[in-house]
Amino acid sequence: MASEDVKLLGGWPSPYVLRTRIALNLKSVAYEFLEEKFGTKSELLLKMNPVYKKIPVLVHNGKPISESLITVQYIDEVWTSGPAILPADPYDRATARFWATYVDDKFFPNMRGIAGAKEEEAKKAAVGQVFEGLALLENAFQSSSKGKKFFGGDSIGYLDIALGCFLGWIRVTELFAGITLLDATKFPGLAKWADDFCADSAVKDVMPPTDKLAEFAKMLFSAAK
Amino acid sequence: MASEDVKLLGGWPSPYVLRTRIALNLKSVAYEFLEEKFGTKSELLLKMNPVYKKIPVLVHNGKPISESLITVQYIDEVWTSGPAILPADPYDRATARFWATYVDDKFFPNMRGIAGAKEEEAKKAAVGQVFEGLALLENAFQSSSKGKKFFGGDSIGYLDIALGCFLGWIRVTELFAGITLLDATKFPGLAKWADDFCADSAVKDVMPPTDKLAEFAKMLFSAAK
Repeated sequence: MASEDVKLLGGWPSPYVLRTRIALNLKSVAYEFLEEKFGTKSELLLKMNPVYKKIPVLVHNGKPISESLITVQYIDEVWTSGPAILPADPYDRATARFWATYVDDKFFPNMRGIAGAKEEEAKKAAVGQVFEGLALLENAFQSSSKGKKFFGGDSIGYLDIALGCFLGWIRVTELFAGITLLDATKFPGLAKWADDFCADSAVKDVMPPTDKLAEFAKMLFSAAK
Repeated sequence: MASEDVKLLGGWPSPYVLRTRIALNLKSVAYEFLEEKFGTKSELLLKMNPVYKKIPVLVHNGKPISESLITVQYIDEVWTSGPAILPADPYDRATARFWATYVDDKFFPNMRGIAGAKEEEAKKAAVGQVFEGLALLENAFQSSSKGKKFFGGDSIGYLDIALGCFLGWIRVTELFAGITLLDATKFPGLAKWADDFCADSAVKDVMPPTDKLAEFAKMLFSAAK
């Protein structure tokens, strides 16, 4: 595919950008990574995503695609020669989409609530909500993976990407809050899944190291004060 | 398909339920409509959607599917003999998904802001945001429909359903706020599209009449006071 022109407007700490990078890696698509400088918006970004002005934006042969879960589906539908990202069965697809939406609408906002909590009570409540979410996701993992390594079976799929992109930020949250979220005794499936996900060849070179993310998070917090 | 068992847990005023009804109609799928009593949650609903406890839930051969846009995609993928709801081209699919997400995340919350505004200033600001959204959607309509009746071309597609389900509530908002949102001089494409959408055989029998919705809205507002 010599004529393919694939650019990704992104930033290394963004979990949403990470989704698109993992999807492109799974499909062995070469792309140019155009790093947006933190706190600024390039002219190209404003032109390519005028509605939200947010990364990631995938620019494929000059045409922009944005919103990370939509972009992952686009990548799956365009590069069909690589491994499938969405399950083949419509019910399994709906289930993967359901939990991916849950991750974005509930799980990650709750997790951000831990870092954002100003008082001990609020922090406890947020941690409780995250544990409830992890229990739901552990169940979803047990029924989706059917004893295999990933939600998607033998290889990384849609829900693996949707949830796995947050693993770096989960580690940072654990570090700062002094808690263990992905507790192997409470969530044995997810704890092992997290290790397998981060070790995968499509993930390991693009998953930000926890210490680098932690430095970035400190910078974010001090800027917010 | 004599063995198909299709039930829909819903309620007539819900735009999200309407999405699934229109999708089922487009595919000529017969289904049993199980109306949830407003303000209560049936045992079946709690069992079928334990995470959100919300309608609509499609129950297909005993298996639940929830979240309206996910359900519409499921219907499209299962009943492939009917007209396609999602576009065939991956880029067109991504574009339809992008605007459908915009409708849910921005457009409809802004529209609700008109009804929820307590002061004239706040109402003006909300109306301004809705007009901005309609301008974006008018552009999207012009480029997606390519001179045809619907976003999806000659027949109703994904984005038609995603936006069209709100037409009843747009009319009610216009009525209560004494304004015209779908102004044919400002948004000629959308104004005609709205008429074509409501007149379609998959829509006209399930779109709630504006006066009935207005009565329901009055009841909601007086209950909220």
